[in-house]
Amino acid sequence: MPVRALWYRRGALHVIDQRALPARTVVRRLTRLSEVADAIRTLTVRGAPAIGVAAAYGMVLGHREGRYSPDRAAKALRATRPTGHDLFVGIEAVRRAWAAGDDVEAAADAYRAEVVSECHRIGVAGAPLFARAHRVLTHCNAGALATVEWGTALAPLRFARQRGAHLFVYVDETRPLLQGSRLTAWELARERIPHAVIADNAAGYYLASGQVDAVIVGADRIARNGDLANKIGTYEKAVVARENGVPFYVAAPWSTFDARSPSGRTIPVEERGELEVLGFAGTRTSPLASHARNPAFDVTPARFVTAFITPDGVVRPRDLAKALARRTSGGTRSSFRP
Amino acid sequence: MPVRALWYRRGALHVIDQRALPARTVVRRLTRLSEVADAIRTLTVRGAPAIGVAAAYGMVLGHREGRYSPDRAAKALRATRPTGHDLFVGIEAVRRAWAAGDDVEAAADAYRAEVVSECHRIGVAGAPLFARAHRVLTHCNAGALATVEWGTALAPLRFARQRGAHLFVYVDETRPLLQGSRLTAWELARERIPHAVIADNAAGYYLASGQVDAVIVGADRIARNGDLANKIGTYEKAVVARENGVPFYVAAPWSTFDARSPSGRTIPVEERGELEVLGFAGTRTSPLASHARNPAFDVTPARFVTAFITPDGVVRPRDLAKALARRTSGGTRSSFRP
Repeated sequence: MPVRALWYRRGALHVIDQRALPARTVVRRLTRLSEVADAIRTLTVRGAPAIGVAAAYGMVLGHREGRYSPDRAAKALRATRPTGHDLFVGIEAVRRAWAAGDDVEAAADAYRAEVVSECHRIGVAGAPLFARAHRVLTHCNAGALATVEWGTALAPLRFARQRGAHLFVYVDETRPLLQGSRLTAWELARERIPHAVIADNAAGYYLASGQVDAVIVGADRIARNGDLANKIGTYEKAVVARENGVPFYVAAPWSTFDARSPSGRTIPVEERGELEVLGFAGTRTSPLASHARNPAFDVTPARFVTAFITPDGVVRPRDLAKALARRTSGGTRSSFRP
Repeated sequence: MPVRALWYRRGALHVIDQRALPARTVVRRLTRLSEVADAIRTLTVRGAPAIGVAAAYGMVLGHREGRYSPDRAAKALRATRPTGHDLFVGIEAVRRAWAAGDDVEAAADAYRAEVVSECHRIGVAGAPLFARAHRVLTHCNAGALATVEWGTALAPLRFARQRGAHLFVYVDETRPLLQGSRLTAWELARERIPHAVIADNAAGYYLASGQVDAVIVGADRIARNGDLANKIGTYEKAVVARENGVPFYVAAPWSTFDARSPSGRTIPVEERGELEVLGFAGTRTSPLASHARNPAFDVTPARFVTAFITPDGVVRPRDLAKALARRTSGGTRSSFRP
């Protein structure tokens, strides 16, 4: 069975609790906007595209509760996490329908369907890149869990494999919250895609020793110039990939692209609590007198990106502004409306 | 009280069990060569220079046991870990004394004293580099725990601080075994040196945003051309430091330099068990169906090194071969003999 990160049914958003994986598969049933906001804030649901869809249904729940205006509901959900762009697009898709008196549930359903469809198209567009590049490194989780279905970074791998590529995936464990070793490994293990979890520190070893043919990651926000925010550590992988002549691909649906951010400098980077770093799986590992810093994202300049894998094809960074302008003139937002 | 990683007294080598830190300070009393070998293999004692000293006393214990020849004792200890060079130098210092009928305990004591003295001189030689470079990143633990006293990478920081530098140390947690967040943080916290533990993934964020003035690490083995093996992840930090114009220093006693390795290609890299990566402190974090790869070291090419901080001064990589030739003609080994 393919993984689905979340689904809406009869007044409730159901989400797989990503904090409990892989040990337990727990589904949380959320019936209030505030519960969705908490689920996003606590990383119960995570991954920029999945957060966008969850927030869209959070708007639907807020509408049902009857005590929010469209703007107040949007504001409450926008305040959950600052970096990922999809959050704002998902909220806006439903806010507009709500403000216009349209069917909010249909708006959220259409937004979800669009994200799933775009991830599917990312898979189709990106698969040929891995027809011969079989040894792939990925960072964090940009799979179905992060995007509802298919994934961004994992979608091309899934399609390449269907077409016969003998993939081997190096999975960065992705400290501090281990989205790689917990979530990406879980998705790959379910589908019996050969993989090895590695400490984030080991990626350079495999890149430098010619054991990685390509790196692929998702993104939380991509600026107009191609700079991108993604899970902390992405920047290091991109720099070391270029140093070793290994292609570095970024896969994302259009909701991740922020045409209003001119560059990475204007992307806000969330800093999370220090306890995520000072311990490991619930055990305090650092001295009690020590403190930590915990930026959750870093910004990778566009010059390190070989290509973006978008729903509409593979785009070089230098062609990105043009591709975005085409979409904007055609109305990027409109594609998310019912 | 300054930290001392190990000491020998009346027929027993006492070592701080580095697996138990920082939660508990446990001292193990070792009276047999095989116990020292196990302590090295299990990382009870770790850090290339400290391993070298522990192995020297392991030879002393083997001599006392009466059932080893010098060569058999040396062979048993050499088989513990392949990458660090000091192990072989420490063993050899005592093996020669043993074979020549000299006092083996005096030989081990002299070897220990030389390592401690060299680390002290590294501190003196390196401190001026941090007179103005106050925001420092370090990886793994290259402190007193790794070297008996003072440390290699931490020695210049200790001396710079005594001279009034307002240091702030970014401590890479150093997965998989967290020698940074457990051991380096413990040493820094004891001495109230301001620091923050960061996920290894976050080093690039701080390097790229101009918040790090210098990187300093130790080494496990340095080849004649300046390529060095050090804890996995060192290579990534070196590449990203150079990308951002941040100096990258490597501090090591002479026992870490391997004049017989022409380059990093001939340095064997230890691969350790996958369970170190698949979980932590008894908690499995990856799916049961997943496997891991776990190289314990990587090799950083000399071109990424700004300078080596040696007991005899700061040496540019291009001058290293000359410095080593000078030492060898004067007799590198002889300095370790009683």
